[in-house]
Amino acid sequence: MSRAIELAANNVEKMNGGPFGAVVVKDGKIIAEAGNRVLSDNDPTAHAEIVAIRKACEVLGTYQLENCEIYASCEPCPMCLGAIYWARPGKYYYAATRDDAADAGFDDSYIYKELPRQPHERSIKGIQIMQEEARDAFKRWKNSVKEIPY
Amino acid sequence: MSRAIELAANNVEKMNGGPFGAVVVKDGKIIAEAGNRVLSDNDPTAHAEIVAIRKACEVLGTYQLENCEIYASCEPCPMCLGAIYWARPGKYYYAATRDDAADAGFDDSYIYKELPRQPHERSIKGIQIMQEEARDAFKRWKNSVKEIPY
Repeated sequence: MSRAIELAANNVEKMNGGPFGAVVVKDGKIIAEAGNRVLSDNDPTAHAEIVAIRKACEVLGTYQLENCEIYASCEPCPMCLGAIYWARPGKYYYAATRDDAADAGFDDSYIYKELPRQPHERSIKGIQIMQEEARDAFKRWKNSVKEIPY
Repeated sequence: MSRAIELAANNVEKMNGGPFGAVVVKDGKIIAEAGNRVLSDNDPTAHAEIVAIRKACEVLGTYQLENCEIYASCEPCPMCLGAIYWARPGKYYYAATRDDAADAGFDDSYIYKELPRQPHERSIKGIQIMQEEARDAFKRWKNSVKEIPY
């Protein structure tokens, strides 16, 4: 965690993005680490956890981080928490909270509040169209895939 | 949306990843599009919406997708919805639902249910340590940044 916090602090100096850092650990060793790179990469998805997860998967040659732990300098936002669920590490550690992030001007806590709302009721509205047409791709998937754990 | 659904269907043939597609539209034109690339890229974050948002930001040279709309063949999972909030398009459209995805074996609906729980109560546990040390990076950020909308 000390390293994740150091990455967060370094990010303020470098202005690559917000003050966030993350590391992925396997068997007691750091296999990937990153600071937030939203500003430097012009990429709103380049949060520290996302970048670190992508790097760790590249190192391991897999899209699953089983038996890994993630250390994040701040509680993961909903995007990063979702990424953690898809990557499936054993657990994760965090230091600062969504409220600390909100106090510094970040939307983490706000997005957590928006998520349980119905898509059409959110501040960024989600509008449903063409459901029947889209279901066909799922049918094809079910027919063609027997067992790819995903 | 027809194009997003076509990308989803094509993805089943190519087996780049799950049956999901997304496009980003600005001023009535598609500026970026993607299928899910989790399998082909060994990247659990490479959902169609994430890849399309990253491409669109690259095209526009910005980390904000103001005045854009996103069309997703399926309701965005929490990770992708979080990415949408960070990218800030005007709105998004979706076709299939989280339940359609669940029926095809994907965890979208499950992750939506996990998110409101306390970190230590979730199936992938989040454990808090070193909050005080981490807050220092936020203090530095607040002192050094006056106005970078993020």
